[in-house]
Amino acid sequence: MSNKETLPDWKRKLHEVIYEADTPAGKTFDVAILLVILISVALVMMESVSWMLAKYATEFYIAEWVITVIFTIEYILRIITINKPKRYIFSFFGIVDLLSTLPSYIGFLFGGANLLFAIRALRLLRVFRVLKITRYVGESQKLISALNNSKAKILVFLFAVLIICIIAGTLMHLVEGENGGFNNIPLSIYWCIVTLTTVGFGDIAPVTPVGRLIASLIMITGYGIIAVPTGIVSAEYSKATDAPKNTQACRNCNETKHLDNAEYCHRCGYELND
Amino acid sequence: MSNKETLPDWKRKLHEVIYEADTPAGKTFDVAILLVILISVALVMMESVSWMLAKYATEFYIAEWVITVIFTIEYILRIITINKPKRYIFSFFGIVDLLSTLPSYIGFLFGGANLLFAIRALRLLRVFRVLKITRYVGESQKLISALNNSKAKILVFLFAVLIICIIAGTLMHLVEGENGGFNNIPLSIYWCIVTLTTVGFGDIAPVTPVGRLIASLIMITGYGIIAVPTGIVSAEYSKATDAPKNTQACRNCNETKHLDNAEYCHRCGYELND
Amino acid sequence: MSNKETLPDWKRKLHEVIYEADTPAGKTFDVAILLVILISVALVMMESVSWMLAKYATEFYIAEWVITVIFTIEYILRIITINKPKRYIFSFFGIVDLLSTLPSYIGFLFGGANLLFAIRALRLLRVFRVLKITRYVGESQKLISALNNSKAKILVFLFAVLIICIIAGTLMHLVEGENGGFNNIPLSIYWCIVTLTTVGFGDIAPVTPVGRLIASLIMITGYGIIAVPTGIVSAEYSKATDAPKNTQACRNCNETKHLDNAEYCHRCGYELND
Amino acid sequence: MSNKETLPDWKRKLHEVIYEADTPAGKTFDVAILLVILISVALVMMESVSWMLAKYATEFYIAEWVITVIFTIEYILRIITINKPKRYIFSFFGIVDLLSTLPSYIGFLFGGANLLFAIRALRLLRVFRVLKITRYVGESQKLISALNNSKAKILVFLFAVLIICIIAGTLMHLVEGENGGFNNIPLSIYWCIVTLTTVGFGDIAPVTPVGRLIASLIMITGYGIIAVPTGIVSAEYSKATDAPKNTQACRNCNETKHLDNAEYCHRCGYELND
Repeated sequence: MSNKETLPDWKRKLHEVIYEADTPAGKTFDVAILLVILISVALVMMESVSWMLAKYATEFYIAEWVITVIFTIEYILRIITINKPKRYIFSFFGIVDLLSTLPSYIGFLFGGANLLFAIRALRLLRVFRVLKITRYVGESQKLISALNNSKAKILVFLFAVLIICIIAGTLMHLVEGENGGFNNIPLSIYWCIVTLTTVGFGDIAPVTPVGRLIASLIMITGYGIIAVPTGIVSAEYSKATDAPKNTQACRNCNETKHLDNAEYCHRCGYELND
Repeated sequence: MSNKETLPDWKRKLHEVIYEADTPAGKTFDVAILLVILISVALVMMESVSWMLAKYATEFYIAEWVITVIFTIEYILRIITINKPKRYIFSFFGIVDLLSTLPSYIGFLFGGANLLFAIRALRLLRVFRVLKITRYVGESQKLISALNNSKAKILVFLFAVLIICIIAGTLMHLVEGENGGFNNIPLSIYWCIVTLTTVGFGDIAPVTPVGRLIASLIMITGYGIIAVPTGIVSAEYSKATDAPKNTQACRNCNETKHLDNAEYCHRCGYELND
Repeated sequence: MSNKETLPDWKRKLHEVIYEADTPAGKTFDVAILLVILISVALVMMESVSWMLAKYATEFYIAEWVITVIFTIEYILRIITINKPKRYIFSFFGIVDLLSTLPSYIGFLFGGANLLFAIRALRLLRVFRVLKITRYVGESQKLISALNNSKAKILVFLFAVLIICIIAGTLMHLVEGENGGFNNIPLSIYWCIVTLTTVGFGDIAPVTPVGRLIASLIMITGYGIIAVPTGIVSAEYSKATDAPKNTQACRNCNETKHLDNAEYCHRCGYELND
Repeated sequence: MSNKETLPDWKRKLHEVIYEADTPAGKTFDVAILLVILISVALVMMESVSWMLAKYATEFYIAEWVITVIFTIEYILRIITINKPKRYIFSFFGIVDLLSTLPSYIGFLFGGANLLFAIRALRLLRVFRVLKITRYVGESQKLISALNNSKAKILVFLFAVLIICIIAGTLMHLVEGENGGFNNIPLSIYWCIVTLTTVGFGDIAPVTPVGRLIASLIMITGYGIIAVPTGIVSAEYSKATDAPKNTQACRNCNETKHLDNAEYCHRCGYELND
């Protein structure tokens, strides 16, 4: 890549190790960083278990700082080995990388920055980078493209679901009142979402006959319309898989995407050679 | 539109603002009304939370009347600016608009008309009007057409599900009795619907071995037949998307199924006329 | 139909009314019987509600006997107006009809035959007979044919699900023991079915970390494999809908099912006329 | 098979009975072994029910040893009647067969080897061997091939789901704390899996408004993305069923995609050679 030419030699080599996953060194680096991320996520999890925190407080403290230092070095290396650092800094992974080094420093200065620890889990998305060399990436892209094509439809669908939940939630609040725990409308809407998505915790449940009748209708609706997003993604995914079968190009006008049984170019009428 | 010609000029202009979403003024009006609807729905929700009602009772009272006045003015304007008011008054949105202005007046005269507040949420469907200018509407129409085509089949399916629920509900009442809360058949049927739709609240649950065996069969049935509506909508939606868009036929060899951008027949090379 | 010729005239007329749904009289009879079935099912439901039984005991008793007499007369009429009564008596609806008249008589002789009341609900399937004249029947048949084609696959799938449940159930019993209510293996298997089908009552739930880990795996498995029956029915249903597009028959050998773009019969080579 | 030629005559006959399911003797043997497996699984289940163990302790003890002896004899016979015993011993069923004879011996020597009893259920997979002769095997293979093709995509999907669960679980722990039972992050992740898969036990449930809002988002996400694996399997299965079966090309016009029963080319009428 031409933008690397202006970098000194050691930076170019480091860039290859850090940013690329095709060379052995690059792959080793990516796997190593992924391991550190996994360990850091596991540490955050274990720290949240009270008896573990009580028993291994010092070990957690040391491990936390070791990981923070590794992440900080990685972040600095990523900035200095790239030609246009801004593109990295303001990219999705650039922001995630910065935010995942911050909690320890903020905790050291002010104490308590727990919310930022959740951001570390986002770093796990790096795993898809390591998998890039495998066949998984083609599958991911097909999936993402199918989901992208379905986005508008699924949003329309979810918005319709939300309106159903608001109406049904208001109804349930009026019908059930404080009996089954439908104390106010937002709570009833929450219950509607729990029910319509067929989750059904059971912490709130209707107790009056009319409330149970409405609940039955909501459940059957949810059971019936779960078909809609499935149908959409299914159809889109079929299309994404079926799409480009015919690869012949016209010798006259270079048009591609001909029908499978085409004998003449549909754009210029020139005869096609199979 | 010809029916607007008989209206005086100011009515015609107002009609454009109120009923059309293509002009800037029309879009602004629609978005403004949508905001008022959103606020009114949010108010109804917040009023239902007891501590909020206790704290902001006066504010809610004032806001309620302001919104009612806005809705009333909008309703009157919609009637006088249209040439055939009856078509609006008895349309779906006409009835919804009327019912959503009434609760405050009824509450003022008789006190308590809570049920009508739920109707206000229906006004949120207006959001699809505002989205009309975007590409979302095409998606909605494909969805609605797929659902429309699936309607008969899904009704047949839901009716079969209901018969299963009645039979299984009666069985569960006989087997479980008052043990697990299966006090009577309607309640058992409610439980069957909760189970078959995989919601599973858990407020009622079988406790006898035979009851649990039947419950297992119901659950596996529900898990197996959830495939049916999904399969239907999926197939219908695929059809709606695949549907033959290009209907031109070659004048030379009568070949059809040309690509949308075809200018020459792919079979004989003859020029196509669009 | 030739088998009716041997019946006396009044029997033939009654046969038309009772067995056929195409004539106005036949349709009226079917709708009337369906109404009586609906009332009888509603009565069984209401009788199970204790306060209703206490209040309207006499009315239920009378209504029960009126319905039993109607069902008995219908059953006798169906037998005497048909040429080959055995075919009706041993058909699905023949057995259901007999069993739905019996509970009252058995209750009169021995007291208590509640299990048979559940059978009455099966009579509701008659509703599909009445719908026969509408377009719903075509849809039902497509559904039934898609389900029939999927039967073998869905059975293989359900059997695999059952083996997963047995293995996971045994594991959960060993891991959780009496902690979360996994008292014995059948109960644990019941819990596995509840979980794998995503119903999740919550009356039994794992409490140990290892149990929760296994439960997570079961849930993700259930979430992943729900796709299988859906995919099967979806594909079968698509096929059932797509199937017969080309209806031309060869003038030479009468072969049908030609490809859409076929110009010559694929069986005898004779030219096809479109 | 040539490798059986080197075995003595009685071994060859036994091999046919034990390893093959096509001959009547082989089928009888397979069904008999399957029955013993079913009984052994039923016994393990019943033994876990405390009142049954108390009542029939001796009977269970005897039956257990009878089954163990049968399994041991079967295992020895399988080894001595095969030419290359190692291939059987280290095959999936070889290991399962060994492990399912061990628990009784280990229990006799050391006491308690309950975990191995769960392995016995794996022997139930033999049922597919007995079904081999029926049409079910074709269906299984189509299913397995569709699942195999979907494997990579479903793994990518499940990994994405896991990352969502880790992030949402950490968030819920921070937001809810010990209120709703979100005591630590692993527990919150468990709850996220329970919720995202729409199981919803309800033993842990959010109680704060913010927690319920996040829970609603998780549920709607789960409801929306359940479409993804379904869409994948559905599309793969359609492909597996549609796959091009007929590969013959016309010698005259080179047209392909003939019907399976075509004898003449549907395009030029030339006779096809199979």
